[in-house]
Amino acid sequence: MKSYRKELWFSTQKRRQLINITPEIEACLTESGVQEGLILVNAMHITASVFINDDESGLHQDYEDWLERLAPELPHSQYHHNTHEDNADAHLKRTVMGREVVVAITEGKLDFGPWEQIFYGEFDGMRQKRVLVKIIGE
Amino acid sequence: MKSYRKELWFSTQKRRQLINITPEIEACLTESGVQEGLILVNAMHITASVFINDDESGLHQDYEDWLERLAPELPHSQYHHNTHEDNADAHLKRTVMGREVVVAITEGKLDFGPWEQIFYGEFDGMRQKRVLVKIIGE
Amino acid sequence: MKSYRKELWFSTQKRRQLINITPEIEACLTESGVQEGLILVNAMHITASVFINDDESGLHQDYEDWLERLAPELPHSQYHHNTHEDNADAHLKRTVMGREVVVAITEGKLDFGPWEQIFYGEFDGMRQKRVLVKIIGE
Repeated sequence: MKSYRKELWFSTQKRRQLINITPEIEACLTESGVQEGLILVNAMHITASVFINDDESGLHQDYEDWLERLAPELPHSQYHHNTHEDNADAHLKRTVMGREVVVAITEGKLDFGPWEQIFYGEFDGMRQKRVLVKIIGE
Repeated sequence: MKSYRKELWFSTQKRRQLINITPEIEACLTESGVQEGLILVNAMHITASVFINDDESGLHQDYEDWLERLAPELPHSQYHHNTHEDNADAHLKRTVMGREVVVAITEGKLDFGPWEQIFYGEFDGMRQKRVLVKIIGE
Repeated sequence: MKSYRKELWFSTQKRRQLINITPEIEACLTESGVQEGLILVNAMHITASVFINDDESGLHQDYEDWLERLAPELPHSQYHHNTHEDNADAHLKRTVMGREVVVAITEGKLDFGPWEQIFYGEFDGMRQKRVLVKIIGE
């Protein structure tokens, strides 16, 4: 069994931002040399997400509006967590979007349907944060 | 390490429908011959879900009502994604329900609690769509 | 390839409760002897969750309030599932929080960011329920 590990670093310009990280994940997979196995991609921070969906800007605006409806940022004072923090909403938004994805590796490639793309979802950004890539297989 | 891959195809009669796919997944597992490992089951489409819960019709109606409350289909015009599409709500519903499940394989069986069943959740159906089954182990 | 399996049992004092199970999961990992691989931790019951977030009591209160807003327990009669049951809300809450986590194992440790902790989220408690730990790797 082979294993591979890499950290990817991201720093967004805005508090909330979605970044398509599929090319970086494909580069990790190539580097690993694994042909058959599983790849885990997870946010290492608890106010960010890794998820799979469509790379379509209208949908990304819909995510922003919808997450703000489900778990609004403001007023900060509505959350018990926000005594020395202001990011309780980011913990909840990340919960909706998910921490991690597990993707099949087949013949050395991400085994994806036609529109699947991997995103880093940042909900409390403007600072350096990490994504972990772990691959196991052969 | 053994690996196994199969695509399962589904076409629902309705836009939204939940299908218990546990028997198909068990058949894949038997076919793979894997005794100890992990099985990944994921939707290959971004408006569908694979999730684990109870096979109880009242609960399935509750899911329908609840998802429509969290991310209503209508009016289609409320979503930025719906310019040439009408399925933004399906992307959001699938996000709540999740893309994938990872299940332990122990002694050649799905290592499940008493009520766990695997479902394909379709939120933009009435056409052929796929689920990926990937197994790794020994 | 090594594999390891263990069931952990929990019984909460309240209907809804979050328990930090990171020390138990670390003990399983040590016991397994696996240095590189993946660990799956999942609820074996469909009204409970395993998820990763911050061990901060204000945030945990925010989760309680937020989940009650998204999927209120009362009145029980609002759910089709609640004919002989009263826990439909717990199925929905667990859906938001997720069934399982998959965590990378690197050099014999949970490969975590600075604040990641694993929680058992109980939404229909006050009885014995199980979490499954499955490890594969080398």
